[in-house]
Amino acid sequence: MEESFVPFRGIKNDLQGRLTCYKQDWIGGFKAGFRILAPTTYIFFASAIPVISFGEQLDRDTDGVLTAVQTLASTALCGIVHSIIGGQPLLILGVAEPTVIMYTFMFNFAKNRPDLGSKLFLAWSGWVCVWTAILLFLLSILGACSIINRFTRLAGELFGLLIAMLFMQEAIKGLVNEFGIPRRQNPESAEFQPSWRFANGMFALVLSFGLLLAGLSSRKARSWRYGSGWLRGFIADYGVPLMVLVWTAVSYIPSGSVPKGIPRRLFSPNPWSPGAFENWTIMKAWLINRICILYIIGAFIPATMIAVLYYFDHSVASQLAQQREFNLRKPPSFHYDLLLLGFMVILCGLIGIPPSNGVIPQSPMHTKSLATLKHQILRNRLVATARKCMGKNASLGQVYGSMQEAYKHMQTPLIYQEPSAQGLKELKQSTIEMAAGMGNIDAPVDETVFDIEKEIDDLLPVEVKEQRLSNLLQAIMVGGCVAAMPFIKMIPTSVLWGYFAFMAIESLPGNQFWERVLLLFTAPSRRYKLLEEYHTSFVESVPFKTIAIFTIFQAVYLLVCFSITWIPIAGVLFPLMIMLLVPVRLYILPKFFKTVHLQDLDAAGYEEIPALSFNLATEAEMSRAASFADDGEILDGIITRSRGEIKRTCSPKVTSSDATASKEFNRTQSPRFSDKVYSPRVSEVRGDSSPRLGGTGRGPFSPRTGESRLSNLGKSG
Amino acid sequence: MEESFVPFRGIKNDLQGRLTCYKQDWIGGFKAGFRILAPTTYIFFASAIPVISFGEQLDRDTDGVLTAVQTLASTALCGIVHSIIGGQPLLILGVAEPTVIMYTFMFNFAKNRPDLGSKLFLAWSGWVCVWTAILLFLLSILGACSIINRFTRLAGELFGLLIAMLFMQEAIKGLVNEFGIPRRQNPESAEFQPSWRFANGMFALVLSFGLLLAGLSSRKARSWRYGSGWLRGFIADYGVPLMVLVWTAVSYIPSGSVPKGIPRRLFSPNPWSPGAFENWTIMKAWLINRICILYIIGAFIPATMIAVLYYFDHSVASQLAQQREFNLRKPPSFHYDLLLLGFMVILCGLIGIPPSNGVIPQSPMHTKSLATLKHQILRNRLVATARKCMGKNASLGQVYGSMQEAYKHMQTPLIYQEPSAQGLKELKQSTIEMAAGMGNIDAPVDETVFDIEKEIDDLLPVEVKEQRLSNLLQAIMVGGCVAAMPFIKMIPTSVLWGYFAFMAIESLPGNQFWERVLLLFTAPSRRYKLLEEYHTSFVESVPFKTIAIFTIFQAVYLLVCFSITWIPIAGVLFPLMIMLLVPVRLYILPKFFKTVHLQDLDAAGYEEIPALSFNLATEAEMSRAASFADDGEILDGIITRSRGEIKRTCSPKVTSSDATASKEFNRTQSPRFSDKVYSPRVSEVRGDSSPRLGGTGRGPFSPRTGESRLSNLGKSG
Repeated sequence: MEESFVPFRGIKNDLQGRLTCYKQDWIGGFKAGFRILAPTTYIFFASAIPVISFGEQLDRDTDGVLTAVQTLASTALCGIVHSIIGGQPLLILGVAEPTVIMYTFMFNFAKNRPDLGSKLFLAWSGWVCVWTAILLFLLSILGACSIINRFTRLAGELFGLLIAMLFMQEAIKGLVNEFGIPRRQNPESAEFQPSWRFANGMFALVLSFGLLLAGLSSRKARSWRYGSGWLRGFIADYGVPLMVLVWTAVSYIPSGSVPKGIPRRLFSPNPWSPGAFENWTIMKAWLINRICILYIIGAFIPATMIAVLYYFDHSVASQLAQQREFNLRKPPSFHYDLLLLGFMVILCGLIGIPPSNGVIPQSPMHTKSLATLKHQILRNRLVATARKCMGKNASLGQVYGSMQEAYKHMQTPLIYQEPSAQGLKELKQSTIEMAAGMGNIDAPVDETVFDIEKEIDDLLPVEVKEQRLSNLLQAIMVGGCVAAMPFIKMIPTSVLWGYFAFMAIESLPGNQFWERVLLLFTAPSRRYKLLEEYHTSFVESVPFKTIAIFTIFQAVYLLVCFSITWIPIAGVLFPLMIMLLVPVRLYILPKFFKTVHLQDLDAAGYEEIPALSFNLATEAEMSRAASFADDGEILDGIITRSRGEIKRTCSPKVTSSDATASKEFNRTQSPRFSDKVYSPRVSEVRGDSSPRLGGTGRGPFSPRTGESRLSNLGKSG
Repeated sequence: MEESFVPFRGIKNDLQGRLTCYKQDWIGGFKAGFRILAPTTYIFFASAIPVISFGEQLDRDTDGVLTAVQTLASTALCGIVHSIIGGQPLLILGVAEPTVIMYTFMFNFAKNRPDLGSKLFLAWSGWVCVWTAILLFLLSILGACSIINRFTRLAGELFGLLIAMLFMQEAIKGLVNEFGIPRRQNPESAEFQPSWRFANGMFALVLSFGLLLAGLSSRKARSWRYGSGWLRGFIADYGVPLMVLVWTAVSYIPSGSVPKGIPRRLFSPNPWSPGAFENWTIMKAWLINRICILYIIGAFIPATMIAVLYYFDHSVASQLAQQREFNLRKPPSFHYDLLLLGFMVILCGLIGIPPSNGVIPQSPMHTKSLATLKHQILRNRLVATARKCMGKNASLGQVYGSMQEAYKHMQTPLIYQEPSAQGLKELKQSTIEMAAGMGNIDAPVDETVFDIEKEIDDLLPVEVKEQRLSNLLQAIMVGGCVAAMPFIKMIPTSVLWGYFAFMAIESLPGNQFWERVLLLFTAPSRRYKLLEEYHTSFVESVPFKTIAIFTIFQAVYLLVCFSITWIPIAGVLFPLMIMLLVPVRLYILPKFFKTVHLQDLDAAGYEEIPALSFNLATEAEMSRAASFADDGEILDGIITRSRGEIKRTCSPKVTSSDATASKEFNRTQSPRFSDKVYSPRVSEVRGDSSPRLGGTGRGPFSPRTGESRLSNLGKSG
């Protein structure tokens, strides 16, 4: 993304880019067929459950003026609008915690003014929305989103971890409250006797930990050894929603003498209960009950806070959904999306519901789940092609040829960028290499010699099924929740807390900051284990002490941000703290760290060394190391274990064409040992380079020896 | 063990064998120093907790005539006697569930006779013990234990799994009862109100699952990545007792309004409370309150049942503690141990406590924990030697030479068998191979080239620290429990149920029957994963269909045995069902299965093909595959993953002395693929052969191709 502060240019570029692929956005979605339901339901749950819970929170804090019905409606409405006319369809919108905090603050302000009161609160908050939207328009038109380029991993990952901490905090708070008496409830009723409260708390512990553990293990179902492939895939795709159902069912097991209120369940009015529609008519309030002009002007103050918040949240969520290791082929759309957000904020303000914005961690979760989908689709197609070809007694060369053809057909035709010939070329290259490695490129092959399913996994890069359908469908499903309220209300709140903890934990792998924190706690004698797996380049190139200092700085900063969220009102402005990281990173950090090290630890887009153009051979190498794993497993490995740069310690495949020599396969029984002795063969490649960046540079073979690389971990600590 | 039914010969042989190494049994134990405490506490908990729980059960069922004090006293007394003058010191004694069932039955009989009553129950049970002992003397003198040779895996593993099922059943029953009102308690008290009962049940779920999960993961601490090596080792060694402490502490967190009886805790009288010593004076009852002669003769009937039970239990526990993969170097002692058991049964009968016998799974657990200990001791010694040698700038050849010297010094000098030159010879062989592989045997080496810690793990075989101290100490500690009753009573019963489940699960890995059951549920497409790990030979040599039929037969038999345990009194005789397996295996199974397949699936000691003498190179190969794991990890792998025969699919180490060629290390990226093509290189070795067996036979290279081996798994199912 070019950095431009010329008015309207950013929006224009965004629109041009996204219009090019708009038609394909829909076609691609529909072509995926039923499989699109897996990422859709996954994201639907990740989106709806927090929104319901925030709605409940709002319900308590605004004396029932706003409820889960309103938050769900806002999420659904904004989601539908964004998925249809929005820029980046990978971005998921929803009512987020900061919005809830802001609205609570605004309600407390309004409630105590005799000339506003809770009756005119929504009308006044409508004015706040108008001001917010105006500010967002300005930011968008002036190209403020260009600054997003300046955001390095440092800021993005810190923010991601902060959100995870807030989710975890919510889960713990919720669980603790299960032992207490909820507000606005009759403390005299049976279920609030000490014995039943204790029983409710213990039951909540069982339910939430049950959901958390079951959810976490169901995500790994693809690598299970038991059950059919279909079942394993189903559990991996739909395991979390399934577990919510299962544990809700479990919560109904105790009966008889157990009072009805145990375990506690979600609380929200049905949308058709009397009075639920009262607050959908802001316009009437504007016209009839005039609001004092001073309040209208005063609304500008909360509006600036909300605008800053949305500007940051929306852009970072979008950025995290488009991380470079996903190899996205369609263009981003920061400026236009912010403009659209402004319109949606006005819309929400006018119909009296809290506005939505781009949410973390749901947006990156969305992209990840679509990567799995795309992989499955590509895989099935190529396996079928190869099988057909082998049925005709074709040679290995021919088989690969036909697979390349199929791969070509499945590429998204894009005018926005160079046609994606990259993938093809590398498929070709790697084909020849592999064929040579197998002895003879022209001999007929059959499946006993050539394991298609496996080879194809090796050949496929990470690709994301970029389309609008999953976003639209999940938004519609969230809207459906409003109607399905009676069923939603069957979910115990404790299952919700378990789900919050699940979301927090799910967002951790792949976060380099988190992985560096883990590295600090890794015993020095065990650090080599990291080198045996996929790992980021800084592990080898930056001294451990530097990594430690950098990480401790970041951790302290994180804790400061976290404690700011506890300050009643100013807490909403914690994004400002994170934006402050940009000058810190630009002007202060270089004084304490070497530039080379900083670049390895925290490279911004504009700083990063032009990397190799998208390297399929590298990807193949990577997935091959996962040996027999299913596609899902490999993909999980690629996506979650590594962000951006990937470096492998194992030596590259020997592509000798001497058939006899290649038969001398021998497993490297001790990678560390062999690394030391045969270091010059160790490859050092960057796998992060999305085709969008292109360019050349740093070759796959580094002159640095394995010896020196290992010394970083071996000597320090 | 030779099969001999000549009277007294078995006992004489046993005594001769064990006397030879008696002195060493003690010296070895004391030489281990403080490290002996790890296996000791591990076994102490595994031994004491079930005994306490059985005592509680007995307390309920005998109206308090027998309590946990008596069961603990019996376990401690018999344990001390056995560890000092017993034959096989690896065997752990304790009061077991069948004994409890028998005593309950006997009590119910005695209670209803006016001329016996609960007052004379213990005096009468003294007579039962006398008869039992006489029968055990007869069995022992006539060499009945020789039959133990006829017991194949089929029977032993089925019994092991049955015990695991009974433990698990006990855990589940216990948990369910936490929701109900216990017998003999006042149902009117506060903690038995429906609300508190429900709360208690939920709390019990939390505590027992907490202990189970924490216990299971603490056992894997050695392979954790975080924390210092010392901490990891400590957690792995003492994790389970530690977790019992932790969860007991957790159970004290709720306070305030929670009644004292929640959670429920162990119930037992203190040994010093009045009346606790009343039943220690059987002799008095015999002399003063004469028992009718008819009852004395009638005591023979329960005595036969107990004798059959003890004969079987004691021998099988001893056999499982001496499995061949442990490579024990000291002789077994079945006949003499049974004789001694007879004396101990009389002793227990006379002082009015229920007798103890050899217990499963504690006995095999004991051997396993000692294998870890021996490994650590050997390892430390050899590392020190090698380091010293390298300090002198020695060549690789010299380093290995000095290590061999050290290894030799640490061998147990035994006259019973061939001096254990095997281990030495193979250390030498493997030394030369490795040295050759490293380029030059005479060049000076240092630690950057030669990773001592790692290499030594590769060289060490599984060895068990066979001594008497750990058994003695754990028995004394069990005795100490009687005095520590007030502390023991702080443990919640729910923690106990968690511990029962833990014991059941811990006994599963390594059980071939269990692993075959898992294989049945493994998806056909995932069976190759089994071949990638250590696996038993039948996986490759027996068609899947045959494995399936054999396993299903065994599973049905297991279920029949399990349902027999539910029959009130006859249930105690389920060992008869298992003994029935001997003729079934000898005469019926060969009609349905091919002899070759039966031998692979279920080889008895006398049937097994004379295997290669203890092959150190193979062991080295095995542990090397585990690459960088700590000693504990490797050992866990060797011990738990495999019983007896071990077969690896990966190709043997290439030991080319050509330095250039050996630089062409390349990781086999797809083991399955390479297997198919390069099958003749796949090694097929048996690693189970203990030196005790010696002999030659089946070489390491089989003419069978990998292709055919894989077809078993690939084609069927």
